[in-house]
Amino acid sequence: MSIAGVRALTFDVFGTVVDWRKSVIHEVTAMELRVDAAKFADEWRAGYQPAMAKVRAGALGWTNIDALHRMILDELIERHSLQAMTEPQRARLNSVWHRLDPWPDSARGLAMLRRRFICATLSNGNISLLVDLARHGGLTWDCVLSGEIYRAYKPDAAVYLGAAATLDLKPEEAMMVAAHKGDLRAARKLGLKTAFVERPLEHGPGGKADRGREDWMDIYAKDFVDLARQLGVAA
Amino acid sequence: MSIAGVRALTFDVFGTVVDWRKSVIHEVTAMELRVDAAKFADEWRAGYQPAMAKVRAGALGWTNIDALHRMILDELIERHSLQAMTEPQRARLNSVWHRLDPWPDSARGLAMLRRRFICATLSNGNISLLVDLARHGGLTWDCVLSGEIYRAYKPDAAVYLGAAATLDLKPEEAMMVAAHKGDLRAARKLGLKTAFVERPLEHGPGGKADRGREDWMDIYAKDFVDLARQLGVAA
Repeated sequence: MSIAGVRALTFDVFGTVVDWRKSVIHEVTAMELRVDAAKFADEWRAGYQPAMAKVRAGALGWTNIDALHRMILDELIERHSLQAMTEPQRARLNSVWHRLDPWPDSARGLAMLRRRFICATLSNGNISLLVDLARHGGLTWDCVLSGEIYRAYKPDAAVYLGAAATLDLKPEEAMMVAAHKGDLRAARKLGLKTAFVERPLEHGPGGKADRGREDWMDIYAKDFVDLARQLGVAA
Repeated sequence: MSIAGVRALTFDVFGTVVDWRKSVIHEVTAMELRVDAAKFADEWRAGYQPAMAKVRAGALGWTNIDALHRMILDELIERHSLQAMTEPQRARLNSVWHRLDPWPDSARGLAMLRRRFICATLSNGNISLLVDLARHGGLTWDCVLSGEIYRAYKPDAAVYLGAAATLDLKPEEAMMVAAHKGDLRAARKLGLKTAFVERPLEHGPGGKADRGREDWMDIYAKDFVDLARQLGVAA
C-alpha cells in the first residue's frame, strides 16, 4: 500500500512538535539558578532514554514521564549543588515540560494536515503533559495518544501497533511523523509509513540532531507545512 | 472543594453531545429499509446497555462499542426480516454511530468551555468512533478519553477515576457533564463534580429523557452554552 492509503498521522512530540531545549533553557535562566542553563537542559534530556530503559527492562515499575523527569531533575540538583531549591521550586521547574513552545511551523502545519488526516500525538509523554502542551502551544489534535495508554515506551512495538489499533487502522494506514530516525525505523518495521521532519536545532546550534534523507523514508520534510504540501494539502 | 476548583470537564457523548436518534433515523430512512426507522433506532439503542452489561459481568470478553453495535444490529436484522441486507450495507449502517450530528449548541458551547477548562470526552464509545464523531461534527476536544482506555464501561468506577488520574487531577477537580442522571450519580459518588445538561429530545418527542434539576447536582443547564455561562465563560 502506497502513502495514498494513509488515513492518520501519529506524531512524536518532544523535538518533533515542540522545541524542548529552548523552552527549558528559558525557564532555567529565568529561575536564576547558578548553572549553565544549556548544559542543564541537555543533561536533563540525556537522562530521558536511560530512565525509560529502566522501565522497559522492568527495573522500574510503570512510571510516567512526569515522574521520570522528576527523578532525573533530583539527580541534577545534587550534581549541580542546587540543594537549596525548595520543593515548590523543584515542582515548578519539573512542570516546564508541560510548557514547551512549538516550533514556528507546528501549529500551522498541523492545522493544514488535519484537513485531510486524523492527527494524533504518539509520544512517550503522559497524557496530561500532552494536553497541557497542546493548550500552551495552540495545537489541535484529533486524539492524544501516549505510551501511557499501552503501558509501554517507544520504540516498544506495543505503542505503534496499539495506536493503529486504537484508531481502527491497519499499520500501513498510519504514518509516523518524527524528527528521530530510531522512532521511524521502529514504526516502519511494524508496517507503518514514515515521515521524517528534520529539526536541525533540536539539540541547539551545532548539536547532533538527526539529519538527512534516507532511502527507506516515505517522506522527508523540512517542516510540518512542507509535510502538508507533500501530502497534497494546499496552504 | 467547590466548583471553583474544577479544572477539567469530562463529557458523556451519546445523547449529551450528539443526537444519536435523529441521525440514526435519518440514515435508516435514506437506506429505504422496510422498517419503522424511529422504532429501529430506539431498539438499536435499547440493546446498548444490556450489551455492555454482558461485558461488565464477564459473560463477554472486552468488546468495543463498534462490535457491540454490530451484534445488536445483527439481531435487529433478524427480528425485522432484513436478511437481504448485504455485508457492505450492514457495515455501512453500523458505522452510522461514527456520523451522529451534534446538538445545535454543542460545538459553540464546547469552544466556549475550552477557553477555561480542559474538555475531554468520557464515553463508552471507542476512541476511533469518538474521533470520527468530533471530525464529523466540528467538535474540538483537548483529549479523547473512553472506557476503552480503562477496559471498563461506565458506570464502572474505573472509568471515572481513570479519567481523573489520566488528567492528573483529583476527582473533585473534574466535572462530569451528562444528560443522564445515572452517569452523574456514579461520578458524584466517586467525588467528581456534576453538571446535568437536559436533552429533552434525546428519545424523541414524548420520549423518556431524564428531566429536571435535583438537589445533588452541582449544575443544571439547558445546553452547553448555558453551562459555559454558569461556569463564568462569557459568550
